[in-house]
Amino acid sequence: MKIGIIGVGLIGGSLAISARQHIPDVEIYGNNRSQANLQKSLDLGLVDFRLDEAMIKQMDIILLAIPVDTALERLVDLLDEVNDNALIIDFGSTKAAICQQVALHSKRGQFLATHPIAGTEYSGPAAALPNLFEEKIQILCEAHKTRPDLLEWAQDWFKKTGMILREMDPVEHDQQITYVSHLSHISSYMLGKTVMEKEKDQSAIFDMAGSGFSSTVRLAKSSPFMWVPIFEQNKENISETLSQYINNLNQFKQLLDANRFDDLHEQILEINNIRQILEGITNTKNNK
Amino acid sequence: MKIGIIGVGLIGGSLAISARQHIPDVEIYGNNRSQANLQKSLDLGLVDFRLDEAMIKQMDIILLAIPVDTALERLVDLLDEVNDNALIIDFGSTKAAICQQVALHSKRGQFLATHPIAGTEYSGPAAALPNLFEEKIQILCEAHKTRPDLLEWAQDWFKKTGMILREMDPVEHDQQITYVSHLSHISSYMLGKTVMEKEKDQSAIFDMAGSGFSSTVRLAKSSPFMWVPIFEQNKENISETLSQYINNLNQFKQLLDANRFDDLHEQILEINNIRQILEGITNTKNNK
Repeated sequence: MKIGIIGVGLIGGSLAISARQHIPDVEIYGNNRSQANLQKSLDLGLVDFRLDEAMIKQMDIILLAIPVDTALERLVDLLDEVNDNALIIDFGSTKAAICQQVALHSKRGQFLATHPIAGTEYSGPAAALPNLFEEKIQILCEAHKTRPDLLEWAQDWFKKTGMILREMDPVEHDQQITYVSHLSHISSYMLGKTVMEKEKDQSAIFDMAGSGFSSTVRLAKSSPFMWVPIFEQNKENISETLSQYINNLNQFKQLLDANRFDDLHEQILEINNIRQILEGITNTKNNK
Repeated sequence: MKIGIIGVGLIGGSLAISARQHIPDVEIYGNNRSQANLQKSLDLGLVDFRLDEAMIKQMDIILLAIPVDTALERLVDLLDEVNDNALIIDFGSTKAAICQQVALHSKRGQFLATHPIAGTEYSGPAAALPNLFEEKIQILCEAHKTRPDLLEWAQDWFKKTGMILREMDPVEHDQQITYVSHLSHISSYMLGKTVMEKEKDQSAIFDMAGSGFSSTVRLAKSSPFMWVPIFEQNKENISETLSQYINNLNQFKQLLDANRFDDLHEQILEINNIRQILEGITNTKNNK
């Protein structure tokens, strides 16, 4: 079986490791914007051969693991080009636009839209990990629009990879993922910005940073090449969620300025329930 | 040597472990608001005996590891009470108010104000860790006001515990720590609140949460008993820093709403430099 990976970064590279492990007689072809990273993925043994445009027709599976703007640019051409039994799977963090784009395509059944809730703040093939997807949620959107035989193959591979499968409407996906992923990134970027602005006067400030700061600011290391296209495609949801977050911060500041510390205490006690919620999720996932 | 620990929680309990390891012939006495937690600290072998008020005079060292409001309430009485060769060390997250409170006390030389940049989101004696302070910054404020022989003893113990010592003005400490600790907690609390409000409609939302969300929201598990008094004592600095953070979020939202994605990209590229800064700090600390 021939698998073509477009985008051999953190996600594409980790998918390559899984394909090598779980798909018999697999040949892995790689394509990448940065030729240096493509060479690195060959050197690391993640992919076996370069994937040229002319070879798209020979692929059985194509994995699209590139920023969401370029995924949108390339998907229709790729669908036009692939042979009649090939499957294209995308792994981007936004799902509404890409599902809409191919809704009426004659080969819609050969496309599967997914979003694995897995990643780190690092990019490139050297960031690929063997267990990145283990026990992680993999969201499938509009799975019923994918040809059943192709869908079954994909589901089987995902399960072997250790993913926990969920089905979801793409519009709903984009709305909800804003809260538990996109907002975290913005909060982290702006935290980094605020502290770096202060650091211009106080060069010793980072010396005082502990693990709490590192934890909240970790996502501020994430690449804008991946994230700005996500912000663009999910602009409406993000703008609304960001308003809610800013409102909550403003309310916190008002309570603080008005010395309403009992109200702050009560509010935080309620927020502390997130502990049970997060632990509950971990348990649920581990029981699958 | 008799050590009295007031507050046998995460910090007090971890200090007990270090005292047991590094101070010869130590007897550890514990005092705690929650009697259940005091019993637990006895059961865990963190402390040897209960510390009653009447026994304060017999202590050689008193460690104050309680919320910053109760530390402020108790410190003067404790200083009045201790024998003439005892040292009281506090470990709270704010330093200006406590240093000011005892500035004119006749036993000022028997007090040392510190802030170890170490902790987790958990509380209580069961959260105590043997290596909590290893390779962590320990800030000493107004060390020159502590009696040299007592200061030397404390510095020696802290070093044995693996702490990296720094001296700092208390007012400066409170201002700078706002950026790298207090703001992170507020950002995390409000992130938790925003998502929990949304969850009321969308109960599946946390199922989509990945490691990025867990990381940014981890501090939202922190206890208000510890944190609200910190917010109260450091109100002016926090209010100002919070305004800067909210301004940055508003500016981000304006760029997003105005489709100025190139500007967002440029801004994030600059924020990405936080990677080098944070890694640089880790290296510096490890070289000490």
